[in-house]
Amino acid sequence: MELLKKKIVEEGRVLPGDILKVDNFLNHQVDVRFMEAVGAEFARRFEGVEVNKILTIETSGIAVASIVSKYFGYCPVVFAKKMDSLNLDKEIYCSEAFSFTKNRNYRIMVSKRYLSADDKVLIIDDFLANGKAVLALKDVVEQSGAELEGVGIVIEKGFMPGGQELRKSGVQVESLAVVKAMDDEGNIEFE
Amino acid sequence: MELLKKKIVEEGRVLPGDILKVDNFLNHQVDVRFMEAVGAEFARRFEGVEVNKILTIETSGIAVASIVSKYFGYCPVVFAKKMDSLNLDKEIYCSEAFSFTKNRNYRIMVSKRYLSADDKVLIIDDFLANGKAVLALKDVVEQSGAELEGVGIVIEKGFMPGGQELRKSGVQVESLAVVKAMDDEGNIEFE
Repeated sequence: MELLKKKIVEEGRVLPGDILKVDNFLNHQVDVRFMEAVGAEFARRFEGVEVNKILTIETSGIAVASIVSKYFGYCPVVFAKKMDSLNLDKEIYCSEAFSFTKNRNYRIMVSKRYLSADDKVLIIDDFLANGKAVLALKDVVEQSGAELEGVGIVIEKGFMPGGQELRKSGVQVESLAVVKAMDDEGNIEFE
Repeated sequence: MELLKKKIVEEGRVLPGDILKVDNFLNHQVDVRFMEAVGAEFARRFEGVEVNKILTIETSGIAVASIVSKYFGYCPVVFAKKMDSLNLDKEIYCSEAFSFTKNRNYRIMVSKRYLSADDKVLIIDDFLANGKAVLALKDVVEQSGAELEGVGIVIEKGFMPGGQELRKSGVQVESLAVVKAMDDEGNIEFE
């Protein structure tokens, strides 16, 4: 998606440790009109794919998924939660993931009320890097017996193994921008 | 908002400890089409109020705020973050709040890049109870020198002090449903 690449180059910042900060439109401040263009692009890429639920993970995935939903027939968005909460159901699917930016493991949970064998699920997330968050979501989908119809990612770090691992497992992964390389001088190269 | 009250009665669950669970459409699964109706209602209530930024707080506020934005000219949505993250800017506004559901204090942060004296801010959140989250957001707005134009809340617990405290301070608070009382049998009474 050319507009996205342009936005990453113009508004993104590369920080030491392979961190690409796109806080300006995706992770802290959200450019909602732009996210609608992202939604339309996902709809184009997954044309003909039947989806009745979008699954994402807190925090940064929620804005994208919520805006993308209307391009998939306003299907419900379920966001996996990252930690225990006193008022979360006991009846949950649970999996474990590793956070690249926070450098630690965490548990994710989805209530069994909101995911079942009837669902055709599109996973949406802001970033794909080591893939651990998406793999944990995929695990949750499999536990529920639902169909995983695809994975839509805004920015993939193509130099990290997540995308390859997911595609190898047979999942349709659509990343709207794939970063091939970046350096501390702020140069960003796309696939 | 009658449709919201109906949804709360039909889909909400009252749990011990004055917890109102509306995970079905607001806090875990998001009914996006319904959230558009929520956005339209906020636009009606804040008609004539100039807003160029929506401020919310992770996690549950993000979906609402992201969908509501288009009813306020697609203005950017900024979500305050709840904890330290390795890749968050050092240049931040910071405040402290208390979580009712998690029963503990937490810090919130907004990057100085995304809030300034030029901004006319509408705070959006899913719940208003003790008001600590919104007061922390208000504190952040004041630190930035921005104007706080109003506070839009999906569900207010009218039997808790947050709404009264905020209104006393002169802020326009618009809550789309105000719960006056609820009990462990699941009865919910609105103002």
